[in-house]
Amino acid sequence: MAEPASRPAPATRKGRPPDPEIDQRALRAALQVYGELGWAGFSFDAVARRSRVGKAALYRRWPDKEHLLAAALELLAEPPPDWADPADLRACLTLMAEQVVDMFVGPKALVLPRVLIEASLYPPLFDETVLTIARARFDAARELVRAAVERGELPAGTPPELVIDAITGRVLSAIVLTPGRERPRIAADPSRHAAAAVDFVLAALNDASSSKE
Amino acid sequence: MAEPASRPAPATRKGRPPDPEIDQRALRAALQVYGELGWAGFSFDAVARRSRVGKAALYRRWPDKEHLLAAALELLAEPPPDWADPADLRACLTLMAEQVVDMFVGPKALVLPRVLIEASLYPPLFDETVLTIARARFDAARELVRAAVERGELPAGTPPELVIDAITGRVLSAIVLTPGRERPRIAADPSRHAAAAVDFVLAALNDASSSKE
Repeated sequence: MAEPASRPAPATRKGRPPDPEIDQRALRAALQVYGELGWAGFSFDAVARRSRVGKAALYRRWPDKEHLLAAALELLAEPPPDWADPADLRACLTLMAEQVVDMFVGPKALVLPRVLIEASLYPPLFDETVLTIARARFDAARELVRAAVERGELPAGTPPELVIDAITGRVLSAIVLTPGRERPRIAADPSRHAAAAVDFVLAALNDASSSKE
Repeated sequence: MAEPASRPAPATRKGRPPDPEIDQRALRAALQVYGELGWAGFSFDAVARRSRVGKAALYRRWPDKEHLLAAALELLAEPPPDWADPADLRACLTLMAEQVVDMFVGPKALVLPRVLIEASLYPPLFDETVLTIARARFDAARELVRAAVERGELPAGTPPELVIDAITGRVLSAIVLTPGRERPRIAADPSRHAAAAVDFVLAALNDASSSKE
Protein backbone atom coordinates (compact mmCIF):
# COMPACT_ATOMS: atom_id res chain seq x y z
CA MET A 1 0.00 0.00 0.00
CA ALA A 2 2.61 2.55 1.12
CA GLU A 3 4.44 4.43 -1.64
CA PRO A 4 8.24 4.45 -1.54
CA ALA A 5 9.39 7.24 0.76
CA SER A 6 10.68 9.59 -1.93
CA ARG A 7 12.33 12.66 -0.44
CA PRO A 8 10.17 15.71 -1.08
CA ALA A 9 11.13 19.18 -2.28
CA PRO A 10 13.35 21.10 0.18
CA ALA A 11 11.87 23.54 2.64
CA THR A 12 13.35 26.53 0.83
CA ARG A 13 10.85 26.30 -2.05
CA LYS A 14 9.41 29.73 -2.69
CA GLY A 15 6.28 31.44 -3.98
CA ARG A 16 3.77 29.62 -1.81
CA PRO A 17 2.26 31.61 1.06
CA PRO A 18 1.83 29.74 4.36
CA ASP A 19 -1.66 28.32 4.76
CA PRO A 20 -2.74 27.81 8.40
CA GLU A 21 -5.80 25.86 7.27
CA ILE A 22 -3.52 23.20 5.82
CA ASP A 23 -1.53 23.10 9.07
CA GLN A 24 -4.69 22.49 11.08
CA ARG A 25 -5.97 19.84 8.67
CA ALA A 26 -2.65 18.00 8.77
CA LEU A 27 -2.37 18.17 12.56
CA ARG A 28 -5.94 17.00 13.15
CA ALA A 29 -5.32 14.10 10.79
CA ALA A 30 -2.05 13.36 12.58
CA LEU A 31 -3.88 13.03 15.91
CA GLN A 32 -6.41 10.64 14.39
CA VAL A 33 -3.81 8.49 12.65
CA TYR A 34 -1.75 8.33 15.83
CA GLY A 35 -4.79 7.44 17.94
CA GLU A 36 -5.77 4.61 15.64
CA LEU A 37 -2.37 3.21 14.71
CA GLY A 38 -0.03 4.29 17.49
CA TRP A 39 3.60 5.25 17.15
CA ALA A 40 4.53 2.19 15.07
CA GLY A 41 1.88 2.93 12.45
CA PHE A 42 2.32 6.71 12.51
CA SER A 43 3.89 7.86 9.23
CA PHE A 44 3.94 10.78 6.80
CA ASP A 45 2.28 8.50 4.26
CA ALA A 46 -0.67 7.78 6.55
CA VAL A 47 -1.07 11.44 7.58
CA ALA A 48 -0.87 12.57 3.94
CA ARG A 49 -3.58 10.08 2.91
CA ARG A 50 -5.86 11.03 5.82
CA SER A 51 -5.46 14.80 5.53
CA ARG A 52 -5.20 15.01 1.72
CA VAL A 53 -2.18 17.20 2.27
CA GLY A 54 0.75 16.20 0.07
CA LYS A 55 3.79 14.60 1.64
CA ALA A 56 5.98 17.37 0.24
CA ALA A 57 3.87 19.96 2.05
CA LEU A 58 4.11 17.96 5.28
CA TYR A 59 7.90 17.70 5.05
CA ARG A 60 8.14 21.44 4.39
CA ARG A 61 6.46 22.01 7.74
CA TRP A 62 7.84 19.22 9.95
CA PRO A 63 11.19 17.53 9.40
CA ASP A 64 10.28 14.14 10.88
CA LYS A 65 7.47 12.25 12.60
CA GLU A 66 8.58 13.32 16.08
CA HIS A 67 8.12 16.99 15.16
CA LEU A 68 4.83 16.31 13.38
CA LEU A 69 3.37 14.42 16.33
CA ALA A 70 4.65 16.94 18.89
CA ALA A 71 2.95 19.75 16.96
CA ALA A 72 -0.25 17.70 16.88
CA LEU A 73 -0.10 17.03 20.62
CA GLU A 74 0.24 20.78 21.27
CA LEU A 75 -3.16 20.97 19.62
CA LEU A 76 -4.62 18.36 22.00
CA ALA A 77 -4.54 20.76 24.94
CA GLU A 78 -4.03 24.36 23.96
CA PRO A 79 -3.43 27.13 26.49
CA PRO A 80 -6.35 29.54 26.91
CA PRO A 81 -6.47 31.92 23.92
CA ASP A 82 -5.15 35.47 24.25
CA TRP A 83 -8.63 36.91 24.55
CA ALA A 84 -9.39 34.86 27.69
CA ASP A 85 -9.40 36.99 30.85
CA PRO A 86 -7.26 35.19 33.44
CA ALA A 87 -9.30 36.83 36.21
CA ASP A 88 -12.45 35.10 34.93
CA LEU A 89 -11.85 31.78 36.65
CA ARG A 90 -15.02 30.09 35.45
CA ALA A 91 -14.46 31.02 31.82
CA CYS A 92 -10.82 29.91 31.80
CA LEU A 93 -11.53 26.63 33.59
CA THR A 94 -14.39 25.97 31.17
CA LEU A 95 -12.06 26.44 28.19
CA MET A 96 -9.70 23.92 29.75
CA ALA A 97 -12.47 21.50 30.64
CA GLU A 98 -13.67 21.68 27.04
CA GLN A 99 -10.34 20.29 25.93
CA VAL A 100 -10.71 17.46 28.42
CA VAL A 101 -14.14 16.69 26.93
CA ASP A 102 -12.52 16.70 23.52
CA MET A 103 -9.89 14.28 24.79
CA PHE A 104 -12.48 11.65 25.74
CA VAL A 105 -15.24 11.92 23.14
CA GLY A 106 -14.84 12.10 19.41
CA PRO A 107 -11.97 11.30 17.10
CA LYS A 108 -9.17 12.29 19.50
CA ALA A 109 -10.20 9.85 22.22
CA LEU A 110 -7.52 7.26 21.52
CA VAL A 111 -4.67 9.77 21.55
CA LEU A 112 -4.15 10.21 25.29
CA PRO A 113 -4.14 6.48 26.10
CA ARG A 114 -1.73 5.90 23.22
CA VAL A 115 0.60 8.51 24.70
CA LEU A 116 0.29 6.90 28.12
CA ILE A 117 0.98 3.41 26.84
CA GLU A 118 3.63 4.22 24.28
CA ALA A 119 5.69 7.06 25.70
CA SER A 120 8.20 4.56 27.05
CA LEU A 121 8.81 3.47 23.45
CA TYR A 122 9.41 6.98 22.09
CA PRO A 123 12.82 8.41 21.39
CA PRO A 124 13.84 10.00 24.76
CA LEU A 125 13.91 13.53 23.37
CA PHE A 126 10.36 13.17 22.14
CA ASP A 127 9.12 11.91 25.49
CA GLU A 128 10.65 15.06 27.01
CA THR A 129 8.72 17.20 24.54
CA VAL A 130 5.42 15.55 25.42
CA LEU A 131 6.09 15.99 29.12
CA THR A 132 7.03 19.63 28.62
CA ILE A 133 3.68 20.27 26.91
CA ALA A 134 1.75 18.53 29.71
CA ARG A 135 3.63 20.37 32.45
CA ALA A 136 3.11 23.76 30.81
CA ARG A 137 -0.65 23.11 30.65
CA PHE A 138 -0.87 22.07 34.28
CA ASP A 139 1.29 24.98 35.44
CA ALA A 140 -0.91 27.48 33.62
CA ALA A 141 -4.07 25.99 35.12
CA ARG A 142 -2.57 25.89 38.61
CA GLU A 143 -1.56 29.54 38.37
CA LEU A 144 -5.11 30.57 37.37
CA VAL A 145 -6.62 28.74 40.33
CA ARG A 146 -3.98 29.95 42.75
CA ALA A 147 -4.79 33.55 41.84
CA ALA A 148 -8.52 32.89 42.30
CA VAL A 149 -7.90 31.44 45.77
CA GLU A 150 -5.96 34.60 46.61
CA ARG A 151 -8.83 36.73 45.36
CA GLY A 152 -11.11 34.80 47.73
CA GLU A 153 -13.18 33.11 45.03
CA LEU A 154 -12.35 29.72 46.47
CA PRO A 155 -11.86 28.74 50.13
CA ALA A 156 -8.48 29.71 51.53
CA GLY A 157 -6.11 26.76 51.46
CA THR A 158 -7.73 25.05 48.47
CA PRO A 159 -4.88 23.33 46.64
CA PRO A 160 -5.05 24.32 42.96
CA GLU A 161 -4.39 20.70 41.94
CA LEU A 162 -7.56 19.63 43.75
CA VAL A 163 -9.65 21.95 41.59
CA ILE A 164 -8.02 20.89 38.34
CA ASP A 165 -8.16 17.19 39.14
CA ALA A 166 -11.77 17.35 40.31
CA ILE A 167 -12.84 19.05 37.09
CA THR A 168 -10.96 16.50 34.97
CA GLY A 169 -12.55 13.66 36.91
CA ARG A 170 -16.02 15.22 36.74
CA VAL A 171 -15.78 15.66 32.96
CA LEU A 172 -14.74 12.04 32.61
CA SER A 173 -17.27 10.48 34.96
CA ALA A 174 -20.16 12.45 33.46
CA ILE A 175 -19.13 11.15 30.03
CA VAL A 176 -18.90 7.58 31.31
CA LEU A 177 -22.33 7.82 32.95
CA THR A 178 -24.01 9.12 29.77
CA PRO A 179 -25.73 6.53 27.55
CA GLY A 180 -23.70 5.84 24.41
CA ARG A 181 -26.43 7.04 22.08
CA GLU A 182 -26.40 10.46 23.82
CA ARG A 183 -22.63 10.81 23.93
CA PRO A 184 -22.39 12.39 20.45
CA ARG A 185 -24.44 15.26 21.88
CA ILE A 186 -21.62 15.96 24.34
CA ALA A 187 -19.09 15.90 21.51
CA ALA A 188 -21.26 18.31 19.54
CA ASP A 189 -21.48 20.82 22.41
CA PRO A 190 -18.40 20.36 24.59
CA SER A 191 -18.62 23.80 26.17
CA ARG A 192 -21.96 23.03 27.83
CA HIS A 193 -20.64 19.80 29.31
CA ALA A 194 -17.42 21.56 30.36
CA ALA A 195 -19.26 24.43 32.06
CA ALA A 196 -21.46 21.95 33.98
CA ALA A 197 -18.35 20.18 35.30
CA VAL A 198 -16.70 23.45 36.32
CA ASP A 199 -19.83 24.78 38.03
CA PHE A 200 -20.29 21.52 39.91
CA VAL A 201 -16.74 21.54 41.26
CA LEU A 202 -16.61 25.24 42.18
CA ALA A 203 -19.95 25.01 43.99
CA ALA A 204 -18.98 21.76 45.74
CA LEU A 205 -15.72 23.21 47.05
CA ASN A 206 -17.39 26.36 48.31
CA ASP A 207 -20.30 24.43 49.88
CA ALA A 208 -18.12 21.86 51.58
CA SER A 209 -16.12 24.66 53.10
CA SER A 210 -19.02 26.88 54.20
CA SER A 211 -20.94 24.06 55.91
CA LYS A 212 -18.03 23.47 58.25
CA GLU A 213 -18.89 24.88 61.67
CA MET B 1 -7.01 -15.96 8.40
CA ALA B 2 -10.31 -16.47 10.19
CA GLU B 3 -11.61 -20.02 10.30
CA PRO B 4 -15.21 -20.60 9.27
CA ALA B 5 -17.42 -19.98 12.29
CA SER B 6 -18.27 -23.61 12.99
CA ARG B 7 -20.75 -23.91 15.83
CA PRO B 8 -19.02 -25.38 18.88
CA ALA B 9 -20.12 -28.21 21.13
CA PRO B 10 -23.26 -27.37 23.13
CA ALA B 11 -22.98 -26.04 26.66
CA THR B 12 -24.41 -29.24 28.13
CA ARG B 13 -21.22 -31.18 27.46
CA LYS B 14 -20.25 -33.00 30.62
CA GLY B 15 -17.19 -34.23 32.46
CA ARG B 16 -15.21 -30.98 32.42
CA PRO B 17 -15.05 -29.05 35.68
CA PRO B 18 -15.27 -25.24 35.41
CA ASP B 19 -11.86 -23.60 35.39
CA PRO B 20 -11.84 -20.00 36.67
CA GLU B 21 -8.28 -19.54 35.48
CA ILE B 22 -9.45 -20.03 31.88
CA ASP B 23 -12.25 -17.50 32.41
CA GLN B 24 -9.78 -14.89 33.62
CA ARG B 25 -7.37 -15.58 30.76
CA ALA B 26 -10.15 -15.28 28.19
CA LEU B 27 -11.56 -12.10 29.71
CA ARG B 28 -8.19 -10.40 29.98
CA ALA B 29 -7.50 -11.28 26.36
CA ALA B 30 -10.96 -10.00 25.41
CA LEU B 31 -10.18 -6.61 26.94
CA GLN B 32 -6.90 -6.38 25.04
CA VAL B 33 -8.41 -7.44 21.73
CA TYR B 34 -11.25 -4.98 22.17
CA GLY B 35 -8.87 -2.14 23.11
CA GLU B 36 -6.72 -2.74 20.05
CA LEU B 37 -9.35 -3.55 17.43
CA GLY B 38 -12.59 -2.04 18.74
CA TRP B 39 -16.07 -3.47 18.36
CA ALA B 40 -15.72 -4.07 14.62
CA GLY B 41 -12.61 -6.22 15.07
CA PHE B 42 -13.74 -7.92 18.27
CA SER B 43 -14.44 -11.59 17.55
CA PHE B 44 -14.32 -15.01 19.17
CA ASP B 45 -11.57 -15.92 16.70
CA ALA B 46 -9.39 -13.03 17.83
CA VAL B 47 -10.00 -13.70 21.53
CA ALA B 48 -9.32 -17.42 21.07
CA ARG B 49 -6.02 -16.69 19.33
CA ARG B 50 -4.92 -14.15 21.95
CA SER B 51 -5.95 -16.17 24.99
CA ARG B 52 -5.07 -19.62 23.65
CA VAL B 53 -8.48 -20.71 24.89
CA GLY B 54 -10.36 -22.74 22.28
CA LYS B 55 -13.37 -21.22 20.57
CA ALA B 56 -15.54 -24.08 21.78
CA ALA B 57 -14.60 -23.28 25.36
CA LEU B 58 -15.40 -19.61 24.79
CA TYR B 59 -18.82 -20.41 23.34
CA ARG B 60 -19.57 -22.70 26.27
CA ARG B 61 -19.12 -19.70 28.57
CA TRP B 62 -20.53 -16.79 26.57
CA PRO B 63 -23.19 -17.15 23.86
CA ASP B 64 -22.12 -14.17 21.75
CA LYS B 65 -19.65 -11.31 21.58
CA GLU B 66 -21.92 -8.94 23.52
CA HIS B 67 -21.91 -11.28 26.52
CA LEU B 68 -18.20 -11.92 26.23
CA LEU B 69 -17.33 -8.21 26.15
CA ALA B 70 -19.79 -7.33 28.93
CA ALA B 71 -18.17 -9.96 31.18
CA ALA B 72 -14.76 -8.52 30.31
CA LEU B 73 -15.88 -4.97 31.11
CA GLU B 74 -17.11 -6.14 34.52
CA LEU B 75 -13.49 -7.03 35.10
CA LEU B 76 -12.33 -3.51 34.17
CA ALA B 77 -13.77 -2.02 37.35
CA GLU B 78 -14.61 -4.57 39.98
CA PRO B 79 -16.46 -3.69 43.16
CA PRO B 80 -14.34 -3.84 46.33
CA PRO B 81 -13.80 -7.47 47.31
CA ASP B 82 -15.80 -9.04 50.15
CA TRP B 83 -12.92 -8.74 52.56
CA ALA B 84 -12.75 -4.95 52.19
CA ASP B 85 -14.09 -3.13 55.25
CA PRO B 86 -16.53 -0.45 54.02
CA ALA B 87 -15.77 1.62 57.13
CA ASP B 88 -12.13 1.86 56.08
CA LEU B 89 -12.55 4.74 53.64
CA ARG B 90 -8.90 5.06 52.67
CA ALA B 91 -8.52 1.35 51.94
CA CYS B 92 -11.70 1.15 49.86
CA LEU B 93 -10.92 4.29 47.87
CA THR B 94 -7.41 3.03 47.26
CA LEU B 95 -8.79 -0.23 45.84
CA MET B 96 -10.98 1.79 43.50
CA ALA B 97 -8.20 4.19 42.55
CA GLU B 98 -6.04 1.19 41.71
CA GLN B 99 -8.53 0.20 39.07
CA VAL B 100 -8.39 3.71 37.65
CA VAL B 101 -4.60 3.39 37.46
CA ASP B 102 -5.09 0.10 35.69
CA MET B 103 -7.46 1.78 33.24
CA PHE B 104 -4.82 4.27 32.09
CA VAL B 105 -1.54 2.41 32.17
CA GLY B 106 -0.78 -0.98 30.75
CA PRO B 107 -2.63 -3.20 28.34
CA LYS B 108 -6.16 -2.10 29.27
CA ALA B 109 -5.57 1.59 28.48
CA LEU B 110 -7.35 1.60 25.14
CA VAL B 111 -10.51 -0.05 26.48
CA LEU B 112 -12.20 2.93 28.13
CA PRO B 113 -11.75 5.31 25.18
CA ARG B 114 -13.01 2.58 22.86
CA VAL B 115 -16.13 2.26 24.99
CA LEU B 116 -16.57 6.03 25.00
CA ILE B 117 -16.18 6.35 21.23
CA GLU B 118 -18.02 3.24 20.18
CA ALA B 119 -20.93 2.79 22.58
CA SER B 120 -23.21 4.62 20.16
CA LEU B 121 -22.49 1.84 17.64
CA TYR B 122 -23.30 -1.02 20.01
CA PRO B 123 -26.55 -2.92 19.97
CA PRO B 124 -28.82 -0.88 22.33
CA LEU B 125 -29.13 -3.66 24.88
CA PHE B 126 -25.38 -3.90 25.14
CA ASP B 127 -24.97 -0.17 25.69
CA GLU B 128 -27.48 -0.55 28.58
CA THR B 129 -25.35 -3.30 30.08
CA VAL B 130 -22.22 -1.17 29.96
CA LEU B 131 -24.02 1.75 31.55
CA THR B 132 -25.44 -0.48 34.28
CA ILE B 133 -21.95 -1.63 35.20
CA ALA B 134 -20.65 1.95 35.31
CA ARG B 135 -23.56 3.19 37.41
CA ALA B 136 -23.23 0.34 39.90
CA ARG B 137 -19.55 1.20 40.40
CA PHE B 138 -20.23 4.88 40.94
CA ASP B 139 -23.15 4.20 43.28
CA ALA B 140 -21.04 1.91 45.42
CA ALA B 141 -18.25 4.48 45.64
CA ARG B 142 -20.68 7.29 46.43
CA GLU B 143 -22.22 5.27 49.23
CA LEU B 144 -18.82 4.60 50.82
CA VAL B 145 -17.95 8.30 50.80
CA ARG B 146 -21.38 9.38 51.99
CA ALA B 147 -21.03 7.12 55.03
CA ALA B 148 -17.57 8.53 55.75
CA VAL B 149 -18.92 12.10 55.62
CA GLU B 150 -21.59 11.04 58.13
CA ARG B 151 -18.95 9.56 60.39
CA GLY B 152 -17.17 12.93 60.27
CA GLU B 153 -14.10 11.71 58.40
CA LEU B 154 -14.66 14.34 55.72
CA PRO B 155 -16.03 17.88 56.09
CA ALA B 156 -19.81 18.03 56.45
CA GLY B 157 -21.43 18.82 53.14
CA THR B 158 -18.68 17.29 51.01
CA PRO B 159 -20.46 15.92 47.93
CA PRO B 160 -19.38 12.28 47.46
CA GLU B 161 -18.99 12.87 43.70
CA LEU B 162 -16.36 15.53 44.41
CA VAL B 163 -14.21 13.02 46.27
CA ILE B 164 -14.56 10.34 43.60
CA ASP B 165 -13.95 12.72 40.71
CA ALA B 166 -10.98 14.36 42.38
CA ILE B 167 -9.33 10.97 42.97
CA THR B 168 -9.95 9.90 39.37
CA GLY B 169 -8.52 13.18 38.11
CA ARG B 170 -5.53 12.98 40.44
CA VAL B 171 -4.70 9.44 39.33
CA LEU B 172 -4.86 10.53 35.70
CA SER B 173 -2.91 13.77 36.02
CA ALA B 174 -0.15 12.14 38.04
CA ILE B 175 0.19 9.52 35.28
CA VAL B 176 0.26 12.19 32.57
CA LEU B 177 2.94 14.17 34.44
CA THR B 178 5.21 11.14 34.88
CA PRO B 179 7.98 10.66 32.29
CA GLY B 180 7.15 7.85 29.88
CA ARG B 181 10.16 5.81 30.87
CA GLU B 182 8.98 5.80 34.52
CA ARG B 183 5.36 5.01 33.73
CA PRO B 184 5.87 1.23 33.70
CA ARG B 185 6.83 1.58 37.39
CA ILE B 186 3.32 2.88 38.08
CA ALA B 187 1.81 -0.05 36.19
CA ALA B 188 3.96 -2.44 38.19
CA ASP B 189 2.83 -1.01 41.55
CA PRO B 190 -0.63 0.52 41.03
CA SER B 191 -1.54 0.41 44.72
CA ARG B 192 1.22 2.84 45.67
CA HIS B 193 0.17 5.33 43.03
CA ALA B 194 -3.49 4.85 44.00
CA ALA B 195 -2.83 5.42 47.69
CA ALA B 196 -0.89 8.61 46.93
CA ALA B 197 -3.85 9.97 44.95
CA VAL B 198 -6.34 9.08 47.71
CA ASP B 199 -4.17 10.58 50.45
CA PHE B 200 -3.67 13.77 48.46
CA VAL B 201 -7.41 14.26 47.92
CA LEU B 202 -8.51 13.39 51.46
CA ALA B 203 -5.89 15.72 52.95
CA ALA B 204 -6.70 18.51 50.48
CA LEU B 205 -10.42 18.39 51.27
CA ASN B 206 -9.83 18.41 55.00
CA ASP B 207 -7.23 21.20 54.78
CA ALA B 208 -9.30 23.43 52.51
CA SER B 209 -12.15 23.10 54.95
CA SER B 210 -10.19 23.62 58.18
CA SER B 211 -8.36 26.75 56.93
CA LYS B 212 -11.68 28.53 56.42
CA GLU B 213 -12.14 31.08 59.22
